[in-house]
Amino acid sequence: MIRIGIVGYGNLGKSCESLIKRSDDMELFGIFTRRDLKEDKFYLLDDINDYKDDIDVLILCGSSDKDILIQAPKLIENFNTVDSFDTHKKIYDYYKEMDKLAKDNKKTALISTGWDPGLFSLIRTYAESVLEDGNTYTFWGKGISQGHSAAVRSIDGIADASQYTIPKEDYIEKVKNGENLEFKAEDAHVREVFAVAKEGYDLKELEKEIKSIPNYFDKYETSVHFISQDELNRNHKGMPHGGRVIRSGKSANNNLSTIEFRLDLDSNPDFTAAVDLAYARAIYRFNKEEKYGAYTVLDIAPKYLSKKDYDKLLKENI
Amino acid sequence: MIRIGIVGYGNLGKSCESLIKRSDDMELFGIFTRRDLKEDKFYLLDDINDYKDDIDVLILCGSSDKDILIQAPKLIENFNTVDSFDTHKKIYDYYKEMDKLAKDNKKTALISTGWDPGLFSLIRTYAESVLEDGNTYTFWGKGISQGHSAAVRSIDGIADASQYTIPKEDYIEKVKNGENLEFKAEDAHVREVFAVAKEGYDLKELEKEIKSIPNYFDKYETSVHFISQDELNRNHKGMPHGGRVIRSGKSANNNLSTIEFRLDLDSNPDFTAAVDLAYARAIYRFNKEEKYGAYTVLDIAPKYLSKKDYDKLLKENI
Repeated sequence: MIRIGIVGYGNLGKSCESLIKRSDDMELFGIFTRRDLKEDKFYLLDDINDYKDDIDVLILCGSSDKDILIQAPKLIENFNTVDSFDTHKKIYDYYKEMDKLAKDNKKTALISTGWDPGLFSLIRTYAESVLEDGNTYTFWGKGISQGHSAAVRSIDGIADASQYTIPKEDYIEKVKNGENLEFKAEDAHVREVFAVAKEGYDLKELEKEIKSIPNYFDKYETSVHFISQDELNRNHKGMPHGGRVIRSGKSANNNLSTIEFRLDLDSNPDFTAAVDLAYARAIYRFNKEEKYGAYTVLDIAPKYLSKKDYDKLLKENI
Repeated sequence: MIRIGIVGYGNLGKSCESLIKRSDDMELFGIFTRRDLKEDKFYLLDDINDYKDDIDVLILCGSSDKDILIQAPKLIENFNTVDSFDTHKKIYDYYKEMDKLAKDNKKTALISTGWDPGLFSLIRTYAESVLEDGNTYTFWGKGISQGHSAAVRSIDGIADASQYTIPKEDYIEKVKNGENLEFKAEDAHVREVFAVAKEGYDLKELEKEIKSIPNYFDKYETSVHFISQDELNRNHKGMPHGGRVIRSGKSANNNLSTIEFRLDLDSNPDFTAAVDLAYARAIYRFNKEEKYGAYTVLDIAPKYLSKKDYDKLLKENI
């Protein structure tokens, strides 16, 4: 059994917890949080080094910038780690830092997994390596963006809000048909906001304010619906998400090939947790094979994720 | 530059040839065939060992049972090889044989790549490793099946024929919605035959004969259209194909996740060649790293397929 520790108890930490309970090759050692929750299986993060011999892999479930960037370089001294660090601009520096620390301590870190970055990253790599002469496009949604929902909620006068990111179907059709489009994410997606206004605020003004939030909304086609808290709770409090990676290109004789990878997820954190745990299995094996350092999904051969032995994979999966 | 040799000059060999011409990190050393074609770049297969120092990787482009099973165990003594061996029942034994021979000779073999087996194999492995509690389904088509077309042509009274394999959309919808279906390939696909009858044969009888060819058609919902040779040549002589791997499953909280990988290919051999060449790059690197033996797509980390160096992958693909 692979002994897993969870760091952080937000949505992702909770999803990891329930998934490990159903696993037959992993067991939950405990969940580490900043506050002492005084419950079975919960530990203070400050005490984590006391348990370094009891845990094979830690799953870091905090936020990228506020938690992982700070926690991971310390934790890697005593633990193998898996994280879903997703601040794209900082991945390169974060990788270099973790690679050095992990090697120094004979530990193994898998950084930036999940579905994007993660499965989408490896699909982009397979697709462009196979179809050299082509273009890769990533679409997100339909799904709830936590960051954008929070940005709306931060407006004075907004009591609560959920934001959907929705890809434009006509863009998807065009790139699947091999049209060589150049566009930015804001051209190919629309944003739909469901918001609850506080009493006494002007809805037209609030709508204007939402649509002009820089980076989050100002460049996007955005629609805003004001609804009751009841309706928001009933219909828009799930965490669905998904997306597609599409690459189309021409082969030697001008024949078109289209590769599409698509995810439709009722629960974004549940699926991210599932990916994290599969990679925890891989990183556990890497460490046993004395492969120390930091890795990404691009370094891991598919067989490392599977519970099946190689003979079974040959017979059932090839 | 990676120096490639092609063994066999059918559809796949020709697609490899045109693709290598457009590559900037591979060059074609030559094409090896049984008959002496007396042209530049063509060599007799019997003389291939004379060129063992001039070729980095051989792509085996013959048929699985008649060519590859016989050629590969000899060629691996002097060459690194990539093949698309696709006789599922024999893959395990073929792997074991090639693994031993390759190790004995310090060579590297990548067996059974292409798209199925190949990319579909690795998607099946990723998908089931991530979504443990679910079902994987593979659909093929819409596309031309060479084997089934040949089976129709072998009937006395048939001058020419093309056969399309077509997946049933309602099965696809159901499995994407998480319905836990159990079915065989013959339930989920229909076969459509376009045939040219020879003069003097009874069309009703021919249709009956086609529909009762064992294994190929007898268990399938099959439709037969008799058309002119002109129309067959004009509309049904391409080699389109494709398919989908779909896995859907429930996560801890009964939330549904659906993973779909889909290929739509104007030319089956062009795309298979593209996959073979990406894996030729990987196997070239494996051999340089002294990774000897036989491998499948499940052993190869995504980064090995890419022309980009790792820093660039970190910055652009993650």
